[in-house]
Amino acid sequence: MAFPASCCADVRPGSAYRAAMASPVLDALTAVLPPDRVITDPDRVASYRFDRASFCPAGQPVAVVRPRNTAEVSATLRIASEMRVPVVPQGARSGLSGAANAIDDGIVLSLERMDRVLHIDTANRFVVTEPGVMNAALSRAVAEHGLFYPPDPSSWEFCSIGGNLATDSGGLCCLKYGVTSDYVLGLEVVLADGEILRTGRRTVKGVAGYDLVRLFVGSEGTLGVITEATLRLRAAAERPLTVAATYPDSLAAAAGISAVLGCGVVPSLLEYMDRASVRAVDEVFGMGFGAGVGALVIAQSDVGDVVGKAEIETIGRQLESCGALDVVLADDPSEGEMLLTARRQALPAFERLGATLVDDVCVPRDRMADLVSGIELLAERFGLIVGVVGHAGDGNFHPNVVFDSTDADQVARARRVFEEIMVLGLDLGGTITGEHGVGLLKRDLLAREIGPLGLRVHRDLKRALDPLGILNPGKIFTPDDG
Amino acid sequence: MAFPASCCADVRPGSAYRAAMASPVLDALTAVLPPDRVITDPDRVASYRFDRASFCPAGQPVAVVRPRNTAEVSATLRIASEMRVPVVPQGARSGLSGAANAIDDGIVLSLERMDRVLHIDTANRFVVTEPGVMNAALSRAVAEHGLFYPPDPSSWEFCSIGGNLATDSGGLCCLKYGVTSDYVLGLEVVLADGEILRTGRRTVKGVAGYDLVRLFVGSEGTLGVITEATLRLRAAAERPLTVAATYPDSLAAAAGISAVLGCGVVPSLLEYMDRASVRAVDEVFGMGFGAGVGALVIAQSDVGDVVGKAEIETIGRQLESCGALDVVLADDPSEGEMLLTARRQALPAFERLGATLVDDVCVPRDRMADLVSGIELLAERFGLIVGVVGHAGDGNFHPNVVFDSTDADQVARARRVFEEIMVLGLDLGGTITGEHGVGLLKRDLLAREIGPLGLRVHRDLKRALDPLGILNPGKIFTPDDG
Repeated sequence: MAFPASCCADVRPGSAYRAAMASPVLDALTAVLPPDRVITDPDRVASYRFDRASFCPAGQPVAVVRPRNTAEVSATLRIASEMRVPVVPQGARSGLSGAANAIDDGIVLSLERMDRVLHIDTANRFVVTEPGVMNAALSRAVAEHGLFYPPDPSSWEFCSIGGNLATDSGGLCCLKYGVTSDYVLGLEVVLADGEILRTGRRTVKGVAGYDLVRLFVGSEGTLGVITEATLRLRAAAERPLTVAATYPDSLAAAAGISAVLGCGVVPSLLEYMDRASVRAVDEVFGMGFGAGVGALVIAQSDVGDVVGKAEIETIGRQLESCGALDVVLADDPSEGEMLLTARRQALPAFERLGATLVDDVCVPRDRMADLVSGIELLAERFGLIVGVVGHAGDGNFHPNVVFDSTDADQVARARRVFEEIMVLGLDLGGTITGEHGVGLLKRDLLAREIGPLGLRVHRDLKRALDPLGILNPGKIFTPDDG
Repeated sequence: MAFPASCCADVRPGSAYRAAMASPVLDALTAVLPPDRVITDPDRVASYRFDRASFCPAGQPVAVVRPRNTAEVSATLRIASEMRVPVVPQGARSGLSGAANAIDDGIVLSLERMDRVLHIDTANRFVVTEPGVMNAALSRAVAEHGLFYPPDPSSWEFCSIGGNLATDSGGLCCLKYGVTSDYVLGLEVVLADGEILRTGRRTVKGVAGYDLVRLFVGSEGTLGVITEATLRLRAAAERPLTVAATYPDSLAAAAGISAVLGCGVVPSLLEYMDRASVRAVDEVFGMGFGAGVGALVIAQSDVGDVVGKAEIETIGRQLESCGALDVVLADDPSEGEMLLTARRQALPAFERLGATLVDDVCVPRDRMADLVSGIELLAERFGLIVGVVGHAGDGNFHPNVVFDSTDADQVARARRVFEEIMVLGLDLGGTITGEHGVGLLKRDLLAREIGPLGLRVHRDLKRALDPLGILNPGKIFTPDDG
């Protein structure tokens, strides 16, 4: 997509180009916001157009606005409402569904400069934070006080809390600790018309009125712009102990996972890699699993001490009981970290093999074997590598479709296999997304999952909170039927 | 309130009285519903008018409808929409906020006969249930499969799951296990116009679209009628071990609770009783604590085995370290149950002393001492007994205001002290309700807690889902300003 000439201009006050821009929106924005908040330089704007999703288009925005505080977010939305300009709230663009992709002639509202951790309350165990703070930065800040913010997407080093809130992110911790929405006590949200709503609370419990917090969380920027969040924390966990088991095939691995889930111990992590993933990390990073390994399962316990040791041994016995080739128990945390390396290297390994579409599907836990074997068949049918890794304890899997993005036929097959995997997930009683969100990538599939009445309710709620339809329009669902 | 003559009639088909009732609503209901579903007998209708809230008015309904299935709920709401008749969805009338109180000329829609547990999935650990099932019945049904449904309001023997969902009920387990909304995976909801929405999922994780489940949960029947719920379960916990500590006053008890919360062990129960409560159970049930006891704290561990013993001993040491008069550790579950008896007898003891208003306030955990001492001062100022019991681990307290309901002055003082306690809770950064809900009792206080913009958003959402305003109108908030 080429840049339209009207956007090839710089709006820094005093710029020679300014007079050339015939944009009332830019005029209004630069009139109320401090000079450095509005970006229109084409190269810089271009870098804000896309998140990390495959197959999702992005429009050409009129500007990127980077507010420093809630008042500036409010001013921006007030202008957008008055002028009926679409606004795309944006975190760190690490999303995988296109929800943060720019819209033609719209404003990209990047929250990246609202990046302060505002307050850590150790007595009541919560943190108040701006949305632009990186997940890892927040985790480190609270860890200094002996506290623990569990939600840990794989992208934690480069995803923002605001983005996590927008998609209700999960991660590797969910089996034991839940997802982002389980940790949100309160929010400050700027509504479409610029009004600033504070909702939720600082108490552990509270049922005063509708649960607005959880309506905004996961709404992918379509209902309001989150400018502050109060997040519940836990006492720090112990450094985890790890066990890894290799299996001849995915069915044996699924049986091992099932045995762990039934044994009473709740692991702090229970991850799965299929044959293609193991092979990819072997090929690319020389991890040395060997050709006979058809699946790998990694589990952790983070309770520490004697109990932790007992837990990880119990888990190990369960994994072994289902025909494991080998079980390695690392009762030293740093050895355990090495075992997790294979899991962490899976996506980089696939990326070295070609373009990747990182998918996300969640099924009832006892349908794991059906999902994994179904995906194997689809990969064969479409002649593509589809490596499956996943949060096995939650039934949440990420099939990585590898393809040559310069080969139109492979691209077409990649799209087809992606869609077939979603349909398979739905047929197994699952959902099209366990943690990445809908965005643009799965908009049509959402309609299939929730049906016409579900869509109607979504549209009714959207209209109630954003009557002019300026907030991230067209993401999650289309504004109207058809 | 006297029954209007038009309602003193029986609508059983063939009844001699039928022709006398000039009610098109009744005609429409009896035309589409099986004969025994519609109650108009005044005595029977009267028994459906009130829940257990103090100080809340109830109207005179045109009928009580008791559907047996979703289709009958849908038919009822379709008629109500066509005829613009208000509908009050109702569970077991155990609520404490008046949310289930009848409305003049409206329909009471009792879900009590939709009382089947439909399906228990042991592999994926969820249960599918109708709303009329009692909490205790559900808990027992899943316990037979070694599973555990944690949310446990004190009223668990006589409150329904539908009511729990409507108010997002808590209980004694929340500190470790969370509240009702933490366990709801999916819902079937009949919307105001009679359409049947299925929302949510059967998977552990899922972020496809807005979190409609948590919008309906806690909405007190104002957004839709829940006709089926899919609830997450846990593996059964071990029988709990118990420790109880007595203190000279509430400040020492608050310090003990604070020490437990900071020690790393998460108790499965951490309950508090103040001086007035201890005295009441002493007076009424002769429990023998003695006059020197100013507060009682009870804690449990439910992990069992060596770990459970270690946990309860750690908790005991923390409780002891803060000036406890006495610490009793019951490492036998049945002894522990006896220790909990005092807590369970508090409300019955107050009820023997007079009429009671059971209130509900939640503050940040480190403000417990301020709340409790503030309530003591208020009780003194208004010359009433206010006994405070509560889920101390959550900062969630139930002040029981005892008064003579035949004494107008005492009633007036009870109302005043109730309101002052709410204001105190808000001033301490808390909320007006941790688990009972808003209903009619706290409608004006909600406006104070969430402010005009919060109210506007509530009204906008209500209008989006219930444009005619037929679903429990006037509960939680008034339909319009002023």
